[in-house]
Amino acid sequence: MEIITYLVLAVGVLGMVFAALTAKKIGKEEKGTDRMKEISASIHEGATAFLYSEYKILIIFVVVLFFAVGLGMSNNNGWLKAVSFLVGAAFSTIAGYFGMQVATKANVRTANAAMKSGMSKALAIAFSSGSVMGLSVVGLGLMGISGIYILCVKALGLPIETANDILFGFSLGASSIALFARVGGGIYTKAADVGADLVGKVETGIPEDDPRNPAVIADNVGDNVGDVAGMGADLFESYVGSIISAMTLGAIAFTGEQSFKGALFPMAISAIGILASIIGTFFVKGKVKDPHRSLKNGTYASSVLVLIFSLVLSKVFFNRFSEAFAIIAGLVVGVLIGIVTEIYTSDTHKSVKRIADQSKTGSATNIISGMAVGMQSTVVPIMLICVGILLAYHASGLFGIALAAVGMLSTTGMTVAVDAYGPIADNAGGIAEMAGLDESVREITDKLDSVGNTTAAMGKGFAIGSAALTALALFFSYSQAVSLDSIDLLNYQVVIGLFLGGMLPFLFSSMTMNSVSKAANKMIEEVRRQFREKPGILKGTDKPDYKKCVGISTEAALKEMLVPGVIAIAAPILVGVVLGVKALGGLLAGSLVSGVLLAIFMSNSGGAWDNAKKYIESENDGEGGKGSEAHKAAVVGDTVGDPFKDTSGPSINILIKLMTVVALVFAPLFMAIGGGEGLIR
Amino acid sequence: MEIITYLVLAVGVLGMVFAALTAKKIGKEEKGTDRMKEISASIHEGATAFLYSEYKILIIFVVVLFFAVGLGMSNNNGWLKAVSFLVGAAFSTIAGYFGMQVATKANVRTANAAMKSGMSKALAIAFSSGSVMGLSVVGLGLMGISGIYILCVKALGLPIETANDILFGFSLGASSIALFARVGGGIYTKAADVGADLVGKVETGIPEDDPRNPAVIADNVGDNVGDVAGMGADLFESYVGSIISAMTLGAIAFTGEQSFKGALFPMAISAIGILASIIGTFFVKGKVKDPHRSLKNGTYASSVLVLIFSLVLSKVFFNRFSEAFAIIAGLVVGVLIGIVTEIYTSDTHKSVKRIADQSKTGSATNIISGMAVGMQSTVVPIMLICVGILLAYHASGLFGIALAAVGMLSTTGMTVAVDAYGPIADNAGGIAEMAGLDESVREITDKLDSVGNTTAAMGKGFAIGSAALTALALFFSYSQAVSLDSIDLLNYQVVIGLFLGGMLPFLFSSMTMNSVSKAANKMIEEVRRQFREKPGILKGTDKPDYKKCVGISTEAALKEMLVPGVIAIAAPILVGVVLGVKALGGLLAGSLVSGVLLAIFMSNSGGAWDNAKKYIESENDGEGGKGSEAHKAAVVGDTVGDPFKDTSGPSINILIKLMTVVALVFAPLFMAIGGGEGLIR
Repeated sequence: MEIITYLVLAVGVLGMVFAALTAKKIGKEEKGTDRMKEISASIHEGATAFLYSEYKILIIFVVVLFFAVGLGMSNNNGWLKAVSFLVGAAFSTIAGYFGMQVATKANVRTANAAMKSGMSKALAIAFSSGSVMGLSVVGLGLMGISGIYILCVKALGLPIETANDILFGFSLGASSIALFARVGGGIYTKAADVGADLVGKVETGIPEDDPRNPAVIADNVGDNVGDVAGMGADLFESYVGSIISAMTLGAIAFTGEQSFKGALFPMAISAIGILASIIGTFFVKGKVKDPHRSLKNGTYASSVLVLIFSLVLSKVFFNRFSEAFAIIAGLVVGVLIGIVTEIYTSDTHKSVKRIADQSKTGSATNIISGMAVGMQSTVVPIMLICVGILLAYHASGLFGIALAAVGMLSTTGMTVAVDAYGPIADNAGGIAEMAGLDESVREITDKLDSVGNTTAAMGKGFAIGSAALTALALFFSYSQAVSLDSIDLLNYQVVIGLFLGGMLPFLFSSMTMNSVSKAANKMIEEVRRQFREKPGILKGTDKPDYKKCVGISTEAALKEMLVPGVIAIAAPILVGVVLGVKALGGLLAGSLVSGVLLAIFMSNSGGAWDNAKKYIESENDGEGGKGSEAHKAAVVGDTVGDPFKDTSGPSINILIKLMTVVALVFAPLFMAIGGGEGLIR
Repeated sequence: MEIITYLVLAVGVLGMVFAALTAKKIGKEEKGTDRMKEISASIHEGATAFLYSEYKILIIFVVVLFFAVGLGMSNNNGWLKAVSFLVGAAFSTIAGYFGMQVATKANVRTANAAMKSGMSKALAIAFSSGSVMGLSVVGLGLMGISGIYILCVKALGLPIETANDILFGFSLGASSIALFARVGGGIYTKAADVGADLVGKVETGIPEDDPRNPAVIADNVGDNVGDVAGMGADLFESYVGSIISAMTLGAIAFTGEQSFKGALFPMAISAIGILASIIGTFFVKGKVKDPHRSLKNGTYASSVLVLIFSLVLSKVFFNRFSEAFAIIAGLVVGVLIGIVTEIYTSDTHKSVKRIADQSKTGSATNIISGMAVGMQSTVVPIMLICVGILLAYHASGLFGIALAAVGMLSTTGMTVAVDAYGPIADNAGGIAEMAGLDESVREITDKLDSVGNTTAAMGKGFAIGSAALTALALFFSYSQAVSLDSIDLLNYQVVIGLFLGGMLPFLFSSMTMNSVSKAANKMIEEVRRQFREKPGILKGTDKPDYKKCVGISTEAALKEMLVPGVIAIAAPILVGVVLGVKALGGLLAGSLVSGVLLAIFMSNSGGAWDNAKKYIESENDGEGGKGSEAHKAAVVGDTVGDPFKDTSGPSINILIKLMTVVALVFAPLFMAIGGGEGLIR
């Protein structure tokens, strides 16, 4: 069975190789006209510039945390943990960088394929590029985990518990990068989007993606940094967090020889998941009529493969099916949450239609009904998560709950591929518009983009659900790390922590919403300035200064993400030190509950508003159409929904996971202060 | 010391006598012109009609619960508890009925005083009427509690624990009435308000409170049923809930003779609070220049009196000051929460000004900044609550936390008086407008009304804060009732409960928001129909059919409150029976945390939007004024804020308290099912 550890590492490498080969293949595709190449280069350049600026800040941050981890816990293999942290941060960065490089090369090739060969080919390129991101995430994730595990256990001969503890450093690395990628990316993309729309579409009346709009490149860059890199880093964090916490709980759940199996099983399942995802990608490519169906087929195929092989592995490892049932519970709940999200945010269902209908009486009723839909949409996902917890626990205790998270995330390679495909198709459409390609090209990219909107909403639901289960699994690991047998709600410290934790997602959301407002305002001023100072831009005789707008989004995103970022890391440390580990336990539980609810509410309200606006534009409801009063009201909802669904909502995912990982990694520090009772008792 | 029990009862009676005398005095004031009498009679009639319709539904509901409580727990003095429930429901009903009768008589007299004698006299009448509501709430509350206590302990010779248990029946009675009064009243008032505004002010362009608007009487009735009766029932529930849970925890905290003192102390403090409130009312009446200052002086005077006498009582009862410190912690936190609420919702501070500023770029930015302000406004109140819990616990353990709730609510008589004064002044303004009184009268009532808006926002903050502490104290009592030594967050059942509980306030809010939408739509249609079918109305030659609109609000409110009401009662029973008492403990904690946050967020966003609109109307910001683009955007925020702050937000207060009381009362039922482990284990 020892060999399996190495096989897992090999599968991680295989994932990366497959990603690299796919990237190479995409690179060989044609780029189209000179104008297309030029636009694509601008987007590529803007995205890369953002990444490099982000890295400059990240390096300082990573160095500080490296020493904090290393020095703070020298008695617990602190430096090994610090190195593990460094590797986690590096791997997440590499996955993001690589995925985005390919995405910004694939957009123009997708547009060209739509022009030359039609939808099947365009879908294949966009999706292949998404799969590079997806397989990089899971490949590097599993490589990192299995590599560090082998190094610790086999090479250094450390006990499994110590290896798992060191692995939480890797998880912290992933979380730190995710924080900046998700929050910064979210602010970047919405500042550009809202800024471009408000001056371009609303004030000036030029269409979406018009090359005369100075913010148009920033808007397209935003799709990449927010929806590709940000989302990838988010799921990278969940992926490694769930595996590592399952390894920890697995090693405790069994004794003796079995203990080793408990730690190995989650890695083995994840390896199966990578293979299943690779196979799943082949279901998407080829001749397609309905891209939505193709993407779904790919996802379902991977899920079914994991389902079957988890039964086999469970039997091989533990001579029973219990552990597989926990995996399957998570997998099924993940798929169902996606479906429920679609029901609440797609215009083929009644919620979105009701918002569209309520738009006829103005913006206020549009907003109220959108909020009500978002709040109502929390009910079924929460119940699904509860049923998942119940089944997984009965299958295999706390280990089962962690396995449910691993199961849900086992097909992450495929999920990220489907999710990242959307912004690439969106970018392709933007390039087609800017390069003045034929209407028929835009029709294909629009079709692909609209499917992308639905998959994006489903992906967001999945990201929240998996974040919830991952944070829960990490929470149980935290209790182990601080040696708490119970975190008692009748203890006043726990209650205080619960209230403080519940409040943090609200604070975090208010900050990220304000950040988008501020950044968008700067963008609006810049676009107005360019139109005012160079009247030739609107006439098409003068070129707008795209770089200036890209610079504004970059600068604002990096500046605005700092305070929320520091709070996310400082809050758990502060509470752990001052109020002790019980209060910190309460804080983690409180932020988990209010965070998950707020995230679902904000994401789904945003998605529903977006599609209600599109529904009215499609004139399906008889009274609507662009320019109607209902449409104007729906645009208000859509604009409110932008930071909801693409900045604040997804940022909460990071908050709840990151705080738990920070609590875990700094557990020895808290225990050193009055045995975990904190400074104020 | 035995005598104190009877003195407490006597103070309760004194409160009621004082309320009755004040009511009689108000009744002797002049009513003004015939037109004023006629309008006042319509409002009075509408409000009374709503109450009677509500009672018809309530009776069925109360009878069902009476038998459920009586039959469900025959082994635990079930029928005594059921009778206690009946008394609680009856007392809450009487307080609401009496307070509203006086309020609907005082409005016209306030208008008349503003016309004949000026502001001081007008303030005195409006505030006196509020104090009738306030003293009825506390007088009947304390009479009920001390009366039942004396009956059980002295007359029937039952142990103190049993008496306390029976008292939770009283608490359930109060909660049940509060549910209908707050949710029904909230839907009523906003359906009428939104309906009257959208057709009247926006579509037709007639001013607020114009007698030609068919919904104008319903709107004025709404102020009474929502803001007077609803708020009164809400605080009646908190008041009795906090006292009874403190009595329970006090009886456990001490042994032997002290046990009796532990139960008596909370009642004694509440009696002091009633006396302090009566004295406080004299600080408000008399010659005033600044009504806001007068009201504040009254509140602060009562608080200082309670503060001093709690030290005395603590020394007398326990020969130490610890218990007084817990009382004072709660009292101070309550006052501070009010001040913080004012900072976030008053237009003299920067949050509201920022929303006004963001309104210049349209409704979307107005909405985003209002939401951000509401979310941010949760931070300080939550921290204050946490500090209160910390201090109170260190002073006197769990009993201390319950005492903090008692302390916060000790001046309820005064708080309700200040709070209920607002809608009366608002009504007086409406009557002045409808009766065509001189502009100068309207100026006085506007001044009083604007102060009322601020006190209303502060009152809402106070209601949420006190609901949080009360629910927490009830939660600790629940753990005693189901014999749980710990409610462990590492237990999967507790985690499931936590998620489900966290979700309920979101579901509840989405339902109440939809209810307001639906009811407002019906109102809009009716007003449009009347304008269409009787063109004479707008010309002033034909009379609108006020009764029809009153009927619509009444019917809609009663119909729409049923489902949320049933959920609030059924959810804890269902979870307790199916998933067991641990899961139910998690549910109560989850709903407490997410509920308090959501309630603060919604109330304060709503209050801030309202005042941002008023700020723009006052043209303080240079660019605004009625009819400006910024004003139009601000009206959208204000309309969204209406159900936020007056329906959904306050309804959550009831939800979190009611669910805990239901859990407490039905504890024996849950324990009968597998020892509290539930059907699904």
